[in-house]
Parts: sequence; C-alpha cells; structure tokens
Amino acid sequence: MPGCASRLTRPSRVLQADASSVMDSQQRYYTLSASCPDGVGIVARVAGFIAGHHGWILESRYHSDDEDGQSRYFMRVDIKADSLPFHLAEFRARFRPIAEELQMSWKISDSAVKKRVVIMVSQQEHCLYDLLARWQSKELDIEIPCVISNHDTFRGFVEWHGIPFHHVPVTPDGKEAAYAEIRRIFEEVKGETMVLARYMQIIPSDMCEAYPGRILNIHHSFLPSFVGAKPYHQAHQRGVKLIGATCHYVSSQLDQGPIIEQDVIRIDHADSIDNMVRYGKDIEKAVLARGLRYHLEDRVLLHGNKTVVFR
Amino acid sequence: MPGCASRLTRPSRVLQADASSVMDSQQRYYTLSASCPDGVGIVARVAGFIAGHHGWILESRYHSDDEDGQSRYFMRVDIKADSLPFHLAEFRARFRPIAEELQMSWKISDSAVKKRVVIMVSQQEHCLYDLLARWQSKELDIEIPCVISNHDTFRGFVEWHGIPFHHVPVTPDGKEAAYAEIRRIFEEVKGETMVLARYMQIIPSDMCEAYPGRILNIHHSFLPSFVGAKPYHQAHQRGVKLIGATCHYVSSQLDQGPIIEQDVIRIDHADSIDNMVRYGKDIEKAVLARGLRYHLEDRVLLHGNKTVVFR
Amino acid sequence: MPGCASRLTRPSRVLQADASSVMDSQQRYYTLSASCPDGVGIVARVAGFIAGHHGWILESRYHSDDEDGQSRYFMRVDIKADSLPFHLAEFRARFRPIAEELQMSWKISDSAVKKRVVIMVSQQEHCLYDLLARWQSKELDIEIPCVISNHDTFRGFVEWHGIPFHHVPVTPDGKEAAYAEIRRIFEEVKGETMVLARYMQIIPSDMCEAYPGRILNIHHSFLPSFVGAKPYHQAHQRGVKLIGATCHYVSSQLDQGPIIEQDVIRIDHADSIDNMVRYGKDIEKAVLARGLRYHLEDRVLLHGNKTVVFR
Amino acid sequence: MPGCASRLTRPSRVLQADASSVMDSQQRYYTLSASCPDGVGIVARVAGFIAGHHGWILESRYHSDDEDGQSRYFMRVDIKADSLPFHLAEFRARFRPIAEELQMSWKISDSAVKKRVVIMVSQQEHCLYDLLARWQSKELDIEIPCVISNHDTFRGFVEWHGIPFHHVPVTPDGKEAAYAEIRRIFEEVKGETMVLARYMQIIPSDMCEAYPGRILNIHHSFLPSFVGAKPYHQAHQRGVKLIGATCHYVSSQLDQGPIIEQDVIRIDHADSIDNMVRYGKDIEKAVLARGLRYHLEDRVLLHGNKTVVFR
Repeated sequence: MPGCASRLTRPSRVLQADASSVMDSQQRYYTLSASCPDGVGIVARVAGFIAGHHGWILESRYHSDDEDGQSRYFMRVDIKADSLPFHLAEFRARFRPIAEELQMSWKISDSAVKKRVVIMVSQQEHCLYDLLARWQSKELDIEIPCVISNHDTFRGFVEWHGIPFHHVPVTPDGKEAAYAEIRRIFEEVKGETMVLARYMQIIPSDMCEAYPGRILNIHHSFLPSFVGAKPYHQAHQRGVKLIGATCHYVSSQLDQGPIIEQDVIRIDHADSIDNMVRYGKDIEKAVLARGLRYHLEDRVLLHGNKTVVFR
Repeated sequence: MPGCASRLTRPSRVLQADASSVMDSQQRYYTLSASCPDGVGIVARVAGFIAGHHGWILESRYHSDDEDGQSRYFMRVDIKADSLPFHLAEFRARFRPIAEELQMSWKISDSAVKKRVVIMVSQQEHCLYDLLARWQSKELDIEIPCVISNHDTFRGFVEWHGIPFHHVPVTPDGKEAAYAEIRRIFEEVKGETMVLARYMQIIPSDMCEAYPGRILNIHHSFLPSFVGAKPYHQAHQRGVKLIGATCHYVSSQLDQGPIIEQDVIRIDHADSIDNMVRYGKDIEKAVLARGLRYHLEDRVLLHGNKTVVFR
Repeated sequence: MPGCASRLTRPSRVLQADASSVMDSQQRYYTLSASCPDGVGIVARVAGFIAGHHGWILESRYHSDDEDGQSRYFMRVDIKADSLPFHLAEFRARFRPIAEELQMSWKISDSAVKKRVVIMVSQQEHCLYDLLARWQSKELDIEIPCVISNHDTFRGFVEWHGIPFHHVPVTPDGKEAAYAEIRRIFEEVKGETMVLARYMQIIPSDMCEAYPGRILNIHHSFLPSFVGAKPYHQAHQRGVKLIGATCHYVSSQLDQGPIIEQDVIRIDHADSIDNMVRYGKDIEKAVLARGLRYHLEDRVLLHGNKTVVFR
Repeated sequence: MPGCASRLTRPSRVLQADASSVMDSQQRYYTLSASCPDGVGIVARVAGFIAGHHGWILESRYHSDDEDGQSRYFMRVDIKADSLPFHLAEFRARFRPIAEELQMSWKISDSAVKKRVVIMVSQQEHCLYDLLARWQSKELDIEIPCVISNHDTFRGFVEWHGIPFHHVPVTPDGKEAAYAEIRRIFEEVKGETMVLARYMQIIPSDMCEAYPGRILNIHHSFLPSFVGAKPYHQAHQRGVKLIGATCHYVSSQLDQGPIIEQDVIRIDHADSIDNMVRYGKDIEKAVLARGLRYHLEDRVLLHGNKTVVFR
C-alpha cells in the first residue's frame, strides 16, 4: 500500500494549529453517561460518590425530562482519570450498586480507548473525504477498521490511507447475503459504531434492530420533511427557501429514527437542483461530523425516539 | 380616540436613525413586474422600451425557470418616475402592446401609492405589535384601513393607533356569516392584501379562491413539516433540532400554498414547548415581516405553486 | 389613561397559545446561581445540601472554566419551591456557611418575585414595542416601573400601557444633571435592571460603575466589529456579507463590556444602508430580548470581561 | 504515482447523485461580466446586442451601486453558446465597440474552458481535502496544475490524486527567493487563480499587487474582527458568541482585501479554543469553497475595496 508509510509517520497536526491552547483533548478522562427515573438526590448521590474518591469533575451535564408525566433524569460527567485512586474496572464495580439502586441505564468509557467506527459509503465522496480528513488530523480520534461499499469506486482512496476496503455489492436478489456479509465484517473487525456516509441502500430491519443506537445515517433533508428518495427534488418541487440535512440513528422505520443533529442553508428560486445538491453536501458533511462526534463522546442519550444531546 | 393626535403629528423616525443615509425609499419609482414564456430578446425588448423613453433603471432582476420542459421568464424593474416623460397611466398604455406580444402576466405599480393591507389577528400579539411598530415608523409604508379579529382583545391597542378595529366572532354555526362579513369589510375598505397575523381560523376555500396571491399567512413551522394544528407540539414530539416559520400565500389546501419566506432557529432537548413557542414567535414575526415586504414591493412572482422572490 | 383598564383586565394569552403544554413557568422555584474557585466536591457539596432537605432539582447547569491557569466553577440550579421545608430567607441562611466555605459569589432568587426593569429609549421604537409586547403577553414576566427617554416621542404609547414615562432631555451642557436625574428615578422606583433599548446616548463612567452587571445595552453590530457610532455605515463601507447585533453589559469602556448574546443576518451588495438598518432591527430586538431573558432568569454569570450563559 | 490510474478512469459522480436533474452545468455557455459608469440604456444596449444575434440568455444579473455620488453599473450574463452564430473570439470582437462606448471593464469567458487554479497550503488539511474532494467529483470543474506548500506534509496525498506537488520552504532569510520561486511556478503552470487554503504565511506586497483579484484567502475569523494571528484565541478572549470565517481577495494590507463570502457558527462559554478551531474549520472550508466558486464563475466583480457577488 503506497503512501501508507508517509501517513503513519506523519505527526498530528490539527491541535498544533493554535499551539498554545491547552491540550484538554489529550488529558485522559472517564465519561459516565446515564439515565434513570427522576427523583430527589440523584446528583447528590453521583457527585457524592465521585467526590468521595476525590474525583475531579471536568465537565458535567444534567437534564430532567418530564414530558408525558414520566420524569426521567439524564447525566453525563467527565472525571479526570488520574484524580481517581483506581482504574476503569474498579470504577465500574464500585459504581454498580448506585446505578442499580437508581435503576440506571449507564455506561462508563475511557478517553484513552479509541472507538471503532466502520464507514459505509456508496459513490458520493463528500462525507468520506470529510471523515478521513478529520481522522487524518486526529480531530476525529478513532479507529477505522475498514470501509465497506456497494461499489468499488473508493478502494484506491481508502487504501491509500492505510484502511482496509471491502466491496460488498448489493443486488436485488442478493440483499440477504450482502447484509449477512456486512454484519460478518462488522463483527469481525469489532466495530462499535457504523456510519452510513451517504450509503444509498436501505438497511434491513433485522440489522437495524441488532444494533440499536449504533448505526448513524446522514439524510439529505431537514427531517421530517422529504423522507425517502431524492429529497432535493422534493424540496425543489415544494419551493422551500431553506434546505437541510439530518443525522439520525437508523431504526427499522425509514428516516424515522431519533434525530441527533440537523442544520439548514438558505437557497432561492434561482438555485437549480444541482445547486441544491452542492449546497446540501456542505450541510450533510458538517451535520454528520458533528452528530458522529457527539455520539462518540457519549454526548447522545436516547429517550424513546428522541435524543438528549449534551453538546 | 386618545393618543391619536400624538401619532399623527409624530415625524417618521426610522430613517433618521442613520440620518446621513441616502433616502432612496423616498424617491418615487415605478415597478414593472412580469412573467412570460421564455424566448430570445425579452430583456432587449423591455429594456429597449424603457431606454427609448430615457427611463432610468434603479434595479432590475430577471430569472429564467425552465423546469418541466417549460421555460418561463420572470422580471422586475424599478424605474425612476421622473426620468420618464409620462405618468403611470401612459406608461401602462404604451407598455401594453409589448406585454401582449410577449404574452405577459404583468403589473406596474407606483411607489407613491400606498398599498392597503388588512390585518387579521386572534389572541396572540407578537405579529400585531411587530407590524404596527413597523407601520408607526414608516418602515412599512402602507395604509392599514382596519384590523379584523375573532376576539375583542386588541381593540384598545389597535384603536389607540388610530386604526379601526372590527370584532367578527367565528362560531361553529356562524362561519359562513362571519366570512361573508369579513369579505364585505375587506371590499368596503378597498383592501388589496390580507395578512393573517396568527389568525387562528381556517379561511374557507371560496375566500381563498376569491383572492389568489393576496392573502398571506404565517405558519408556525418550517413547512412542509408539521402542517396544521400545534406544530410546536409536533416538533417537540419528533425531537427536531431546529424549529421554524413559513410565510406563504393561502390556498384552498391548508398550509400548502406557495412559500414566500422561511427561517429557523436552533433549539435543543432542554427547550420545553413553552420555550419553543417563545423562540418561534421571534422567527414568525421576522419571517412574516420579510414576506409581507417582498409581497408589497412586488418582489414575489407566482410560478405554479412556487414563488420567484426578487429580494 | 385611556385603554388602561382594558389592559389590566386582559388575561395572559401567550401561554394559552398551545394550551395543553405544561405550565412550568407558573411553577414556583428558587434559582441558586454561583461561582467559586474550582475544586473537588463542589457539586457533591451543593447537591448534597439540597438533597438533604429533599429539594427537587428542576434544572441544573455547571461549568468549569480553567483558562489562564485559574480554574473557576460556575453553577445554576432551579429547585422546586414547595419541595423545600423552608422559605427563601431560611434557604439563604442555611446555605451561607457552604457558600462561605467554598468562597462563592452567589445569589438565590425566587421565581414568584418579579424583577424590576427600567427601559431607556430614544426615538427608535422597534425594541420598545418588542419589549412591551412581550411584557403584555407575560412572556416577559417583569415589572416595568417606568420608561425613561431623552425624547418625549413615546409618552403616549408607553402611558397607554399603564407605565409611567419620564422625559429626561440630555443636552451637551446638562449631561451631569440628566444622569443624576436618571439615577434618582431608577433608585426611587427600586429598579434592579436597566435596559438601553436603543438609547442613543453614552452612559457616563460613574453610572456604569455604580451598576455593574445591571445595565444591558443592545449594540447594532456584531462586536467587536464596528464599535461606536453608525455601525451599519461602517459595515456597508467594509463590504461585510453578514450584519449583526450584540447584547452586552455596559461598562465604562464604550461597547467593550461582557457580551451576553449575539446574532447575525445575511446581506449582500444590493442591500442599501436603509435595508441593513431594516434587517438589523430584527436582529437587534431578538438579541436584546434573549439577552434580557437570560439575565433576568439568572442565567448569565460574569467571569472577568466574559459571560457564562446557561441558556 | 500509485492510485492515479484508478482516479483517471473513475467516472464523474456527483451529478449522478440525483440523476434525473437537468445537467445545466454541462451545457456550454459564455459569461459576460462587466462594470461601467451608470446611465440610461445600458441593459438595452447589451441585451439588444445579444438579441440581435439571437443569443439565448440563461441567466442575467444587474446591479446599480450609487454610493458616494458615483453611480456604477455591474452586470453578468450567461448566454447559451450554441445560440450564437459565432465563437468566443468573434463575440469579443463584436462586443468590443459597445464596451468601449460604455467605458466598461469587461470579460467574456467560456464554460468549456477550465480555469487553472493553484492551491497553496501549509499543514492543515481541512481545506485541501475539501477542495480535492470537490475537484474529484467535478463539482469544482477546474484544472489544478499543482499544489505548492511550505511543508512537505501533503506530498503523498496530493500526488496520489495525480497532481504535482511543490515544496517551497519559507525561511526568515529566504522569503524573497521563496516567493520568486512560487511566482515562477505559478507563471510556468499558467496559473490564473491562486487559493491560499490555510497557507500560513503572509504574501509579500509586490506579489499581491502583481495579481490583483486573483489570489483568494480564507481567514479564520469574521472580518473585520480579529485580524492577524490566532483569531480563535482573540475570539475566545473577547467572549464572542459566534465565530466565523471570511474569504477575501488578498491585497497588500493584511486581511483588508475585498470580502467575497463570510459565514458564522454559534459557540458558547463551554467551547474551548480547540472546539472553536474544530467548528471554525467547517465554516472555513464551506466559505472558501463558496467564495472560490463565485470567483471562478465570474460572479464576483470588484468595486473599490468591496465586491458585487451575483450568487
């Protein structure tokens, strides 16, 4: 694989851009994210536990959502790793009784352990180039164990970056086999998150259900407007004055999953569909990148078909 | 009517804000707006006519829309009134043969003649206060012959401004009579444009069809998302990350008319429906005011169910 | 004062707009806002205190700012009033030892006590109309003990709303006396916050210093661009593609105080200065209203010449 | 050069994305862009000339700018190439007398002739990746004869795309020689436009003056705020609530050249400088790409130190 060596010896650059800034991102921390039924004393209980071990809180976010008469509490706390007298496993073990008492859905992750993200792509390059640029610069500090595509178009580009590329064609008759293969690869490379970076195929329901909250899609409209195919054509037809993009979790109902991030851009009557596609792509890649980052940093908590996003 | 005198003697103020700016808005001009089948030589024909009479073009905008295989040409030209050797009626008479030759839908208006706008309102004040503030300062340089409401709430406020107020209740059984009365008033005051400034009733089809392109509504969502009632509730339910508002012409299909202007504002999971209403109102009044101004300055040309807006 | 009666008997309306929404805003709560040197256990200490009295936390926000090697901790907590076994004075008394131990700047306010806001205005109405509309509808649930102006222009409009109006002319020779009078009125009416709603005079340094963090201004540019007079002219001259507005605390250095809120709107080469003024006014009033609300809800904490805004 | 073959045989893809859209962009047209002193009959004269040769106007834009008492007229017209009975040279020859009569600055370009753009880069990849992705997909349908950098970092990436890469180090003592070399390369490859895609060196005055309106820079702030080095640090220091980026022509005064395009993104107190850099990069690349496209499509006309941008 040519070019690979030069990449591997390349130093991280983005953070040098403004070199005197504090390198927070390189400081190791644990992130506790959780939700539970609301009640008196939750913050006190959790913060008390952390303080009891002299844990230094770098950032903490709480949210109480009381719609439909059911109050649910959401939280996300970053704790300096070296302020605690124990490591992750011990942290988890000690926190478990509190979590059980409060009936929490919870997770603790370690900033030093890179998340494993598999990228799915078809024939449009804007999101792929954008994600690999962010990965190159370590702005997106993840492992990309492989890229999977239903076309062979980007093999050269992906492999040049030193990333394995799998071409899994999806034919009308071969869908089942194709998705079995995709799932096999995803499991084999120990993928944690799957990103549909303008992957132009519909993921089968059983696969959606196998990975809830783990498959992110970028849809090229401001949902719930213009679900399904050719949203820019739909938008042009309706004569809207802004177009948008939506990053959401994939669920078994097409374009109906929990929304993570959205944005829009202004157009006018003079913009052809080609122009809308052009402007739209800028929104798509920015929205996908933001949504993916929030997800990877455990900033997105699910609440039914909605999300709490602690940006 | 108390307070009225003080208003009438009050000088225009807005344009004094930055007093050295050129008072373009007070220069008299004629606006020609038109659309016709596209072809060679349209601009040449129209601009040639104007130049032939030594007309000074202040601003001109053209657009060719060729979707669906049918090319249509749109234009809007502002001509300095005193550069022409004749007045409006003569202008119209002389332009008519060209317009007929080019099969134009066309209109010529005079900036010195104020448009007559009837405001319809229910019980929310944000759009009403906003429009009257703009009218007070002459930013919106129109005649408001009256305000009509299905509630008596704003009588005092409207009348203080020296504007007649009509309370026309709309009851389940009395709809037909109510809208007959509204149309009678609108005709009597020689209304040209009707603005539904958060008027919370559905205009009957026959009235929509009687005034095509003359009734503007502000809908409190980013259409086509969240048609109909309680759009902020719908938006909250779906978990969108931006909310918006849409100014559109009213047609006989609810919230389906041609869109004139839209805008959005960012929200997040922490925003209650009350907060969404609060943020939304700011977008609503800004979008309505922009859309109304574009309409009144003949900047909006209809193209099927879409608009060309020469901002 | 004509019209006054009708106002006073008018029911609150805004919140009826979407009537089924939960009336959170009418639920009484106490807001604790504070900042202190950062350290281990602050959240635990505060949340523990609240939980110890069975206080129900409605919303809590924390932020650690560690720039310049000095870590400072900021917090804002809303606690349901009737979940606590005591009233505000007792709350303050019991919290004081903790605040002192943690070296806090702190404040506890009661949502049932309306803030007293004096509005200062000159000859432009957009911010005044906008604030009074919000006050009318109780969106802005404050007391406005009076409006003060260096012109008599808005007397009728303000008095119609049942609000006292003071005309305090500011002449080159009479500045000192004028500001002495303004301060006298502000003190007399027990004003807590002063809002410069496009008040086109420079507040003298001694008055700025007398009310730190209590005087809000709306500046009609995206600061730090275009400080001082005629910012739209400056923007037009420089050829920027967006114009903006800034809500900030007034300090003794003109347009240099801590920024609370900002926003922008797109313009282009075709926009005259008059158009920029027109678009700008929409941004000004929205930014001022948001900034003022954040301030009144104790969401704005000062940090040197910057703000932490817990929106 | 590995990978190169696969690129060259790769089909254009972007426009297939929404394959049924009309392929306007592949229709050949001539673009006339011009400015001249304002007067009666300019549009008539130009449109009459085009119509006289049966030229089909695809898009036309006009603007009259009358600031400072001097009226200047700007125009941009796209004419279908095959509607004219002659080619570009003949078009130019026949138009010249009109242009001279009207004292025009003017230019006619041919959409079938690709513009030659040299990219300058330092060590940040976001703009480079972004531009090459757009070039790959032919969204940006240009020739890139080479990339020049003061570092060798991106040699592999650029060469993989089949584009020559020149490393021209800039040392304190060797500046003059370095810029002489850069100009030599630019001339040798017949560069028409130079794009500073986060090239972190100051271009010497004589080079700026040698290529007026031909060197585009992306500055990572919303100018005129935060001129010069480390704008995100300056923005953090001032506590602004939005950050931005500016695409402008380079002039001999640092960050003072005519602004082509700008945009902003919202931040808050919780965003570290690293986060601001991260968000800012998304704005930078979008703004640079839009500004570059407007420039390449002759949509940007200079007017003193400002631009008219016919988007």
